[in-house]
Amino acid sequence: MDIILIESSLELVPEQIRYHPSVVKNALKVGKDPSKVLLDISLHYHAMRDLPNREKRGRPDIVHTVLTMVLTDPEFRGEVLIHTVDSRIIKVSRKMRPPKNYLRFVGLMEQLLVYGRVPLEGDPLMEVSTLTLEEVIRDRGLILLDEKGQRVNPSSLCNSKEFIGVGAFPHGDFDPEVRKLSGSSLSISDKTLETQHVVCRLISSCAQG
Amino acid sequence: MDIILIESSLELVPEQIRYHPSVVKNALKVGKDPSKVLLDISLHYHAMRDLPNREKRGRPDIVHTVLTMVLTDPEFRGEVLIHTVDSRIIKVSRKMRPPKNYLRFVGLMEQLLVYGRVPLEGDPLMEVSTLTLEEVIRDRGLILLDEKGQRVNPSSLCNSKEFIGVGAFPHGDFDPEVRKLSGSSLSISDKTLETQHVVCRLISSCAQG
Repeated sequence: MDIILIESSLELVPEQIRYHPSVVKNALKVGKDPSKVLLDISLHYHAMRDLPNREKRGRPDIVHTVLTMVLTDPEFRGEVLIHTVDSRIIKVSRKMRPPKNYLRFVGLMEQLLVYGRVPLEGDPLMEVSTLTLEEVIRDRGLILLDEKGQRVNPSSLCNSKEFIGVGAFPHGDFDPEVRKLSGSSLSISDKTLETQHVVCRLISSCAQG
Repeated sequence: MDIILIESSLELVPEQIRYHPSVVKNALKVGKDPSKVLLDISLHYHAMRDLPNREKRGRPDIVHTVLTMVLTDPEFRGEVLIHTVDSRIIKVSRKMRPPKNYLRFVGLMEQLLVYGRVPLEGDPLMEVSTLTLEEVIRDRGLILLDEKGQRVNPSSLCNSKEFIGVGAFPHGDFDPEVRKLSGSSLSISDKTLETQHVVCRLISSCAQG
């Protein structure tokens, strides 16, 4: 089973708010260039007030939690791709071990989004791809996990050839453009689950399969 | 199923290293009293060099990850208790919602360990208990999850009356005193799992049970 984190809440501070006094102040406090800082609602709440799509943005901790869970799991054998809320595709090597410390993770993702890859030389552990989501899934297809989808047991997805798409944003719904790309949407629970719970159930079900 | 996180890597900076220059410097940099700071290997690596039991200490991110996963899961109905590496027992209300932001979580746990409870007034969300682990488990018993234990399916634990003990330290083995308290040790995987993976499999198995 290969997972794509969909519309992941992971991006650099967008240009519209780069010169907001609180963004500049926060960046300078830690000696960073404001254009090279991850958007984080715990730092940029006020500056984000007028950002479009605000409810889906500024939560890089979601990707941190999920990558840390998936990539260290000794029983998960699939691949993980990150599709971001601003439509980038990030390839993640199975050799990648994300820093458990959140601040170090943030630093690494900033490096990734500024330079397009980490590490800067040698085999990449993470890389911003030039492909679009549509191109990535063209041959294999995409199943979106969505609370409104048809209810299935997560273990039925373990051998899926289609990519399994899991929303990695805090609130709101999938973008209509993303929905259009997906053949079907399925649900693995009667309850509303967070990204980490969805991924946890997928891994666990397939580990015991 | 009620879970006890065992020997959790969660404590204030111990007295032996409280006056270590790097500890003092780190604390003052963020305006904190060095005696009221969580021990964190990402900050205190050098100061921890001579601490006994060092490989099990200074990783509050483990409790953070697990509490965030368990307490927000809409399908987990059990209780969670924290037993710490320095033998405290922390009661956690099911109403507790740990801050997803790591730095805010650290601040909250510092308040808990300094004052014995959070919030300081009203119904506690977390509270340091005067009970010992032995007293907590006396009536119900304790099953330790341990890679060397007898292999079982995690779903067989969903209706356990015994507390399920999950190690919440990064390396090393359970303390012999803790082992003595446990009636049996069981394993839920053929692989070595991190705390987060153990808890994820428990929750997932019981959610679909």
